[in-house]
Amino acid sequence: MNKNKFSPLFCDLYHLTMAQAMFDQGTHNKIETYEMFIRKAPFNGTYLLTAGLGEVLKWLNDWHYSNEDIDYLRTLGFKEDFLNMLKNSHLEIDMHAFKEGEIVFPNEPIVRVSGPAWQAVMIETGILNIINAQSLFATKASRIVKASQADGKKRTILEMGLRRAQDTQGFASTRAAYIGGIDGTSNVEAARYYNIPAVGTMAHCLIMREDNEKEAFKNYMTSDPKRASVLIDTYDTIQGAQNAIQASIETGIALKSVRLDSGDLARLSKKVRYLLDKAGFYDTKITASNDLDEYTIQSLILEQKAPIDIFGVGTMLATSYDQPALGGVYKLKKTGERDVIKVSELPVKTTIPGSTDVIRIIENNGQYAGDIIYQNGKTFLNNNTLNQNIESVRTDNESIKKFLQGKKAYRPMIEVIKSGIVNQEEMTKPLTKIRDYATENLSRLNDTHLRLKSPHTYIAGLEKGLFITRNDLRKKALQKELFVHEKD
Amino acid sequence: MNKNKFSPLFCDLYHLTMAQAMFDQGTHNKIETYEMFIRKAPFNGTYLLTAGLGEVLKWLNDWHYSNEDIDYLRTLGFKEDFLNMLKNSHLEIDMHAFKEGEIVFPNEPIVRVSGPAWQAVMIETGILNIINAQSLFATKASRIVKASQADGKKRTILEMGLRRAQDTQGFASTRAAYIGGIDGTSNVEAARYYNIPAVGTMAHCLIMREDNEKEAFKNYMTSDPKRASVLIDTYDTIQGAQNAIQASIETGIALKSVRLDSGDLARLSKKVRYLLDKAGFYDTKITASNDLDEYTIQSLILEQKAPIDIFGVGTMLATSYDQPALGGVYKLKKTGERDVIKVSELPVKTTIPGSTDVIRIIENNGQYAGDIIYQNGKTFLNNNTLNQNIESVRTDNESIKKFLQGKKAYRPMIEVIKSGIVNQEEMTKPLTKIRDYATENLSRLNDTHLRLKSPHTYIAGLEKGLFITRNDLRKKALQKELFVHEKD
Repeated sequence: MNKNKFSPLFCDLYHLTMAQAMFDQGTHNKIETYEMFIRKAPFNGTYLLTAGLGEVLKWLNDWHYSNEDIDYLRTLGFKEDFLNMLKNSHLEIDMHAFKEGEIVFPNEPIVRVSGPAWQAVMIETGILNIINAQSLFATKASRIVKASQADGKKRTILEMGLRRAQDTQGFASTRAAYIGGIDGTSNVEAARYYNIPAVGTMAHCLIMREDNEKEAFKNYMTSDPKRASVLIDTYDTIQGAQNAIQASIETGIALKSVRLDSGDLARLSKKVRYLLDKAGFYDTKITASNDLDEYTIQSLILEQKAPIDIFGVGTMLATSYDQPALGGVYKLKKTGERDVIKVSELPVKTTIPGSTDVIRIIENNGQYAGDIIYQNGKTFLNNNTLNQNIESVRTDNESIKKFLQGKKAYRPMIEVIKSGIVNQEEMTKPLTKIRDYATENLSRLNDTHLRLKSPHTYIAGLEKGLFITRNDLRKKALQKELFVHEKD
Repeated sequence: MNKNKFSPLFCDLYHLTMAQAMFDQGTHNKIETYEMFIRKAPFNGTYLLTAGLGEVLKWLNDWHYSNEDIDYLRTLGFKEDFLNMLKNSHLEIDMHAFKEGEIVFPNEPIVRVSGPAWQAVMIETGILNIINAQSLFATKASRIVKASQADGKKRTILEMGLRRAQDTQGFASTRAAYIGGIDGTSNVEAARYYNIPAVGTMAHCLIMREDNEKEAFKNYMTSDPKRASVLIDTYDTIQGAQNAIQASIETGIALKSVRLDSGDLARLSKKVRYLLDKAGFYDTKITASNDLDEYTIQSLILEQKAPIDIFGVGTMLATSYDQPALGGVYKLKKTGERDVIKVSELPVKTTIPGSTDVIRIIENNGQYAGDIIYQNGKTFLNNNTLNQNIESVRTDNESIKKFLQGKKAYRPMIEVIKSGIVNQEEMTKPLTKIRDYATENLSRLNDTHLRLKSPHTYIAGLEKGLFITRNDLRKKALQKELFVHEKD
């Protein structure tokens, strides 16, 4: 039942019908540039933590139309000369992208694809499907991890949402959650596939099949002493804690953790901590679960001072419950030598024309100072320092910020495909490395931007020259009445 | 990049540690019964349309531990005698389930598994992951289809959400949406895999790369006249409609459809319909998309009388946006000969003890009259008629409804696995057949239960004998203080 066939048919039908129309017209090999970007950060936050690029590269590393693919397309009525072109094609595009684990802001090109129009169009949905979902999960996970450290203390986050995940087998959600900073997953197959720590405690059924909770604990602890974590809320949580302590004393096996999965976690964790400490079980951790998200976790830690060491997070993370979709789009930016702009009646909804790149300015203390979106091809950096003063213009209020020559900076986008050849290092980068990179990047973002509610906007402005170009193009489009009425 | 390996490791880690504990204790082969059920219907509705069973069966049809599986588990510290048992095992469970495309109500056993405890436990998460997600998508789709027929007229629904789906490649969401009644999908790979009609129109980029919208339409229509559906809102929708009409006249190719993807769909669709009709384009359909869900569609049809023929539905369906997770659970119902009950302080939150089955009563007009959950093994039906009077008790208010002997009825659950052998017919049933069955079942549910907002609850009550047993067991548990304080 190997369902996931990552062929070039990982697309929408209209990509094929459009490619055929371009082919018939003879413009299918015109060089065009497309960019994926978000218009708004998820969760009313300021940032997106990118994830999924490695999977996109694995797909494109092996991108060719098989005989079976062609046969299927023939049944859909595509024409022989077009099918022949597909069959003899190989990937020719260039791709630049934010590395996995990088932070990206609205309007910045997460992925930029340049190459024969038909190919750049054809891979739209595969890119969006993978990167939209994984970046959403990674960002959600990063918020949960951040919340769990609200008092400055590191805690452990376990991903346990497989049973509710929309993603069959939860590969994407688990992979991305790990990049976002979770410490382990209950999902055994994904843990194996991605080399993520597999974690778990026990379920209610193991207690309920026995007559006696304490005996059930003893059996479980004896079977695998290194995993002596028990679930204590099947009947009465306080009695459960006492039974767990007693089971540990009677078996002589150290109680690693007790888990609470219901009730008022703040009140119960305090009572349970008291009982554990009174019995001298200072090293026994308290694990809590039950529809937890970043807001509940932050409240438990900051407001309630709940003595919880490990949070198990399920549905809220595995489905990104409060925002289940990221609205990343993939848009034409340049066709031949012409920069494309989509003009709205509202100035702020007008897109950024042409192929773009990003410079991220870094403060001396290592924190991110601001981003500048500029016309791709311009050179503002020498050896990771600004080679001139740059003015950055906010698209929402046109305020200007100036960054001085000599300021430290870097370009987050890197080349990941060149003339169809995939950068193997980016494709096979170990998840732990991506995860470390994400953690480091998040630490460079000021806490004011990471705040769960009403965070301070991080400025990713337009380089002034690009801002002026955009306004000029907008005026021209309005004169020609080539503008969009209601949608950006 | 064939990620989906449907091995027995499609589980949570605690299933393995619990199985090992049972094995050490020598109780792993004790016969136990588990049931999957929902506590509440999704979307504040009354029903769940089941989907996913065929995929579960495909997984279990080939369920065995490979050497690679065993090697990985060894790295996690499992013991040799346990690994040996796993390696030499084969599936032995029995499974009964609601057919795919059947309607199920809260507390009814969607799936019932009976067999060696360790196996019944081990397959929990695979069952939940697949059936939770697919039933959610199927139900969402059924609501959207229903809304699109709010005025009694059939309309076409196209699934176009792949770029936002959490499910990598959107196989599960597309499959389930088709069962729920959508007519086609833009997802080419899923269309091929599941033999679903592949559909689509065109994207904005095909217009924006040209200088002239009308010429772009002409090129597209000429390339594939049978797919002459064009997107008319890139600049100005009204001008776009006129360009589409003109392109059709100039090419002599019939305009199949025009698509609106932004703006006020009610207002624009009326204007566009007027222009089409004025030009004699009576057969040209109007397709609408843009974050549509069942509520917007119903409003467009009923309140606004928008002349829309085809609805393209994306994010809202592909991520089940307003409720991205179904809370289906899988609980121990019977261990050996003992019925298990989970008692809450609140009577209504007390579970139904023991192994259960369902009878669905049918009115003479074919409509569903009510369901009865009863103790599995009792015989209340002969030749699809009640062989005695049955009283059904609502769990929420204890009101009683009586169904008379001779009433037509059926049992929605069927045997799908017997002693580990999978029913091949259920496993390989064509999706079109499941889809037809779903449509028929939905038509048997009174419209009052299908209403989008504040629907009338369909009664799935407890057979009176089971109700009494449940109360008795509850009393005993309360006396022994074996009850759950805060969670059902």
